[in-house]
Amino acid sequence: MRGFASDNYSGIHPEVLSAIAAANDGHQGAYGADAYTARLQEVFATHFGDGVVAFPVFNGTGANVTALQSMLPRWGAVISASTAHINVDEGGAPERIGGIKLLTVPTEDGKLTPELVDREAWGWGDQHRAQPLVVSITQSTELGTLYTAEEIRALADHAHERGMRLHVDGARLANAAAALDLPLRAFTRDAGVDVLSFGGTKNGAMLGEAVVVLDPAAADGLVYARKFNMQLASKMRFVSAQLIALLEGDLWLRNARHSNAMAARLRSAIEQGLADGSIRGVGFTQPTQANGVFATLPDGVADRLRESFRFYDWDASRNEVRWMCSFDTQESDVDAFVAELGRLTRG
Amino acid sequence: MRGFASDNYSGIHPEVLSAIAAANDGHQGAYGADAYTARLQEVFATHFGDGVVAFPVFNGTGANVTALQSMLPRWGAVISASTAHINVDEGGAPERIGGIKLLTVPTEDGKLTPELVDREAWGWGDQHRAQPLVVSITQSTELGTLYTAEEIRALADHAHERGMRLHVDGARLANAAAALDLPLRAFTRDAGVDVLSFGGTKNGAMLGEAVVVLDPAAADGLVYARKFNMQLASKMRFVSAQLIALLEGDLWLRNARHSNAMAARLRSAIEQGLADGSIRGVGFTQPTQANGVFATLPDGVADRLRESFRFYDWDASRNEVRWMCSFDTQESDVDAFVAELGRLTRG
Amino acid sequence: MRGFASDNYSGIHPEVLSAIAAANDGHQGAYGADAYTARLQEVFATHFGDGVVAFPVFNGTGANVTALQSMLPRWGAVISASTAHINVDEGGAPERIGGIKLLTVPTEDGKLTPELVDREAWGWGDQHRAQPLVVSITQSTELGTLYTAEEIRALADHAHERGMRLHVDGARLANAAAALDLPLRAFTRDAGVDVLSFGGTKNGAMLGEAVVVLDPAAADGLVYARKFNMQLASKMRFVSAQLIALLEGDLWLRNARHSNAMAARLRSAIEQGLADGSIRGVGFTQPTQANGVFATLPDGVADRLRESFRFYDWDASRNEVRWMCSFDTQESDVDAFVAELGRLTRG
Amino acid sequence: MRGFASDNYSGIHPEVLSAIAAANDGHQGAYGADAYTARLQEVFATHFGDGVVAFPVFNGTGANVTALQSMLPRWGAVISASTAHINVDEGGAPERIGGIKLLTVPTEDGKLTPELVDREAWGWGDQHRAQPLVVSITQSTELGTLYTAEEIRALADHAHERGMRLHVDGARLANAAAALDLPLRAFTRDAGVDVLSFGGTKNGAMLGEAVVVLDPAAADGLVYARKFNMQLASKMRFVSAQLIALLEGDLWLRNARHSNAMAARLRSAIEQGLADGSIRGVGFTQPTQANGVFATLPDGVADRLRESFRFYDWDASRNEVRWMCSFDTQESDVDAFVAELGRLTRG
Repeated sequence: MRGFASDNYSGIHPEVLSAIAAANDGHQGAYGADAYTARLQEVFATHFGDGVVAFPVFNGTGANVTALQSMLPRWGAVISASTAHINVDEGGAPERIGGIKLLTVPTEDGKLTPELVDREAWGWGDQHRAQPLVVSITQSTELGTLYTAEEIRALADHAHERGMRLHVDGARLANAAAALDLPLRAFTRDAGVDVLSFGGTKNGAMLGEAVVVLDPAAADGLVYARKFNMQLASKMRFVSAQLIALLEGDLWLRNARHSNAMAARLRSAIEQGLADGSIRGVGFTQPTQANGVFATLPDGVADRLRESFRFYDWDASRNEVRWMCSFDTQESDVDAFVAELGRLTRG
Repeated sequence: MRGFASDNYSGIHPEVLSAIAAANDGHQGAYGADAYTARLQEVFATHFGDGVVAFPVFNGTGANVTALQSMLPRWGAVISASTAHINVDEGGAPERIGGIKLLTVPTEDGKLTPELVDREAWGWGDQHRAQPLVVSITQSTELGTLYTAEEIRALADHAHERGMRLHVDGARLANAAAALDLPLRAFTRDAGVDVLSFGGTKNGAMLGEAVVVLDPAAADGLVYARKFNMQLASKMRFVSAQLIALLEGDLWLRNARHSNAMAARLRSAIEQGLADGSIRGVGFTQPTQANGVFATLPDGVADRLRESFRFYDWDASRNEVRWMCSFDTQESDVDAFVAELGRLTRG
Repeated sequence: MRGFASDNYSGIHPEVLSAIAAANDGHQGAYGADAYTARLQEVFATHFGDGVVAFPVFNGTGANVTALQSMLPRWGAVISASTAHINVDEGGAPERIGGIKLLTVPTEDGKLTPELVDREAWGWGDQHRAQPLVVSITQSTELGTLYTAEEIRALADHAHERGMRLHVDGARLANAAAALDLPLRAFTRDAGVDVLSFGGTKNGAMLGEAVVVLDPAAADGLVYARKFNMQLASKMRFVSAQLIALLEGDLWLRNARHSNAMAARLRSAIEQGLADGSIRGVGFTQPTQANGVFATLPDGVADRLRESFRFYDWDASRNEVRWMCSFDTQESDVDAFVAELGRLTRG
Repeated sequence: MRGFASDNYSGIHPEVLSAIAAANDGHQGAYGADAYTARLQEVFATHFGDGVVAFPVFNGTGANVTALQSMLPRWGAVISASTAHINVDEGGAPERIGGIKLLTVPTEDGKLTPELVDREAWGWGDQHRAQPLVVSITQSTELGTLYTAEEIRALADHAHERGMRLHVDGARLANAAAALDLPLRAFTRDAGVDVLSFGGTKNGAMLGEAVVVLDPAAADGLVYARKFNMQLASKMRFVSAQLIALLEGDLWLRNARHSNAMAARLRSAIEQGLADGSIRGVGFTQPTQANGVFATLPDGVADRLRESFRFYDWDASRNEVRWMCSFDTQESDVDAFVAELGRLTRG
């Protein structure tokens, strides 16, 4: 059954699968001592500039925890939105595995601002307080919203002025670039981001993310942290080859543009339906700026809609649902979904 | 450059790669809610019997730490050989991430015995002592040696009589089964093993291992531990599909038999050479029971040999080296290597 | 300089000091195998009933982290008020040392309610979510407020019905008992509390707290956790003797009543001053139910007042300060403070 | 019942108790902001020279874990003797709480040498290996033996040349100074020791140790680590006052000399008895260089002797016992013990 549950319900983009097969060419050094991981560094440099270093890892939680650990002393804490994936969706890994205190701030739209950061950016030097030394934001956010390059620049400046670093959870960074119509570098390295979790899985890979150090002074011990965090692939070439397949050409961007476009199509079709009466009682809770649509449904509609399409409740207490589009979402998927939504809400 | 560095210098077995491609069939539930992971349970049951549960993870360190955590309370300790991978090759992950004290025992051949276990199996109830509650062995061992089914049975009985559980690090379990010429079950579940780390990567997978719970009473909280240990693949179907490809038919066994046979060929060719004088000054430090050969070389030979073939020093202080064979080691690889070894040692 | 900074600025109550001296009677078994620690169990039983077990530890953070660990599996999380000491004042120890995710809820008065608990009491069985298995409240709270026995009963029932346990951070439990005019048992064990951190330090001890297990089924492994959490005193008799000195007679209650009375005197004198105009511009932000007074001051007054009396800002952004009274606060301390406050606010 | 179980079976030296009482003089800043903790810095400077910083903590495990953490990045490991307290007697706290891998080396006498260090001092830069960055020794050792100043110097030089730091577990440092007849500084700071755990409890305190940073470049973040390791006393003045009482005059040395002398008396009386036949079948397993005597007894003697005197088995498998002397051990204790030992071994 197809649907809008998550961008990780999709499989592997055919070009990524081909790249895995192409990398299957005899012996290569293990644990990163391979030609693909070397090549990956060059590929990242084309996007982010010279001097960046990328550490391929298995998954997003691994990327985030390893990145944050590398940016923090043992006594460090991270300021994030309370809706951040690191806070709500990683089974406590940042705390349990990373030993990291999260200082979370409620937001309307999943986005921190300098003012929101300041709610927790205090107490440096106080031995009783886990020291706020990193601000972590998600781009595009867990609520489908987007930071502009200027907003990120303001957060980076604000953090740096206070002796903090800026981390970006970029599980959907490609979607953000597509939506902003900017090079990856423009709203990350050039905007002052220090360390990045770059996501491949939701962009069409089988699995594979990278911790990308944009400012070498911001991170330490990554090779060791990746290992003891159990994120070091022995046959790393196959992780690197996937990321190369996405980033060497424009596959990353094509995939992101497509999933964003499908979300836009979904939203505008529903808005159209609401306008012409073919859909009733649906509301939107967030702007649709990337590949996710957040909506409220009339009572009972969500479960009936799920008889035909997969998707998740977001906040069941207010009938809020999340619909995610992916690189392989088809226009026909969207259209069938909107039709069924209309049928159920009119009924 | 080919060689004998490690069984993870090899790529993906073509049948495994085909299985990945075949699993790329549209949408599947993420995080294990997919048809392949369900099927994998059945496949493991054919090998290990009803009631076993397999939790796919990314890599061997992840499998070991997650398995051991699930078997232990916070105050638990693990008795292992001092040469165990968990002690020497995991960057301290069992301690740092698992919070697990290792109680290590020196061995001659990488194998624990009940007598060796007893060196650390004491102090239960003593609040000052990390409580020894699990014995962990590696099969086949990091030194290329093998436990018989009877030896494992004796260790399991010994552990169970003392309130401890038995874990097997089976990164090369397939090699052990091939060498013992026994079903996987015969020297694991039927011999009293409680929880198993089953290795796919060194057996021909791209990546993929599984924590296999053989006695459901022996493990707790695995779904949570896998997540917070950052070992939960979102597109898990592609990990499961690889393990299915290995285990559904006899690919696991063919691969293991082949790598074992290549190690035997290597050893016997060198022994032959030593006998006929075509090779000089090479000694063996361990029996060759699976896919690894451990040898000492005359001064300077290792580095010259490495100009043509990759392999690692094992104990440089005594000129000891390790040569590992893999599913894709060719007879011609072995023969060329032996010829060059002869040339250099006669030299 | 005296003042109202914290109840731990005070020294040792003379009766507690005498008890330390009296316990200095030759050899005693170390690490709890002494007559005083045995006697302490009986003393706790007189207050909390048969079957409770008390584990003396060094400090409040140690008591809280050890208590919570003993109540939780590795995948457990704790629901607390965002103002809880475990969240804001323990340097991240629950997360870093305990490996515990805190799920925090904003409150008006530092008190959880069943409704507030429900904001985080969900997601059991979801592998992505740290599992909420303990509710932790502070009695009296960090904001000087108080739970009634009925309110605690309601929280305990609410927690238990959902498979969660109830922990009380009782660093100031004596103050709560004095304020409620209830036996310690009435609003803890009899109200459904499972495990208690009982505080001696702020009640007149030199140092010493105890993890008190009220329901033996609620905690596991405490002897080991106390040790590896570095909370096991070798000469434990001197910690136990202090707690005995407090709890064997009514010293605990006398001390608590006195500090509560001093806080009441402080508040009512200020209210009086506000009424008669001798004090101006002071507001109260919390009810004064135990030994702390929370107030807002006119701009600049706090710093000038601190030239004569020690106390802390609570929320500097709104000129909020905290004044704590202790067992050794004198009426003259209060009166001098009020007089100076009047002088400064009139000026 | 008196005996030779441990130097922590003793109580508080009367001068230390008086110091606690004398420090009970009204309000003092909490958490170290008190006059006694300030004075303690000066006292430590008289012993160790200018620029050292002392962080009072609760107990020896707390001192060791906090010290080692402050010396290590997250990926660091510690080389120690396998008999070290950190390895065998701290419930796994270094691993579980500190996140520190211990690389242990068997020794004859509890003492590391440069050669023994080298068994584990390798693998820097290898991402698979926890990085050996600290050598930790115990002075005097857990086996009652002693490092000379020259031996410590050799270890410090050896460590520093390899980029490692040297930590001393000085739970019985005073005993070592007394035995060596050297100032504390001569065999610590002047011998190249970087960070020290200084023990007060076994030297006559009620409780209290200090992490002493001898080389400020060797440690980082101690104020934070002390807090999150739950070792920060709120009424710290009473810990500091005890250490001042020991170290300001010569109480530390008197106590240590006395306990050493009692151990020497015990050993020589037994040797005398063996020579004159009044004692039979007792052997010594270690030299008696500080305050502990390690001996083997004829079968059954240990248990009968324990009917009158407390002491511990050290290695029950070979009838080895440990007898510790303390600041309050009396000559009459020793003489009565030797007499009973004679009676039992002659019988």
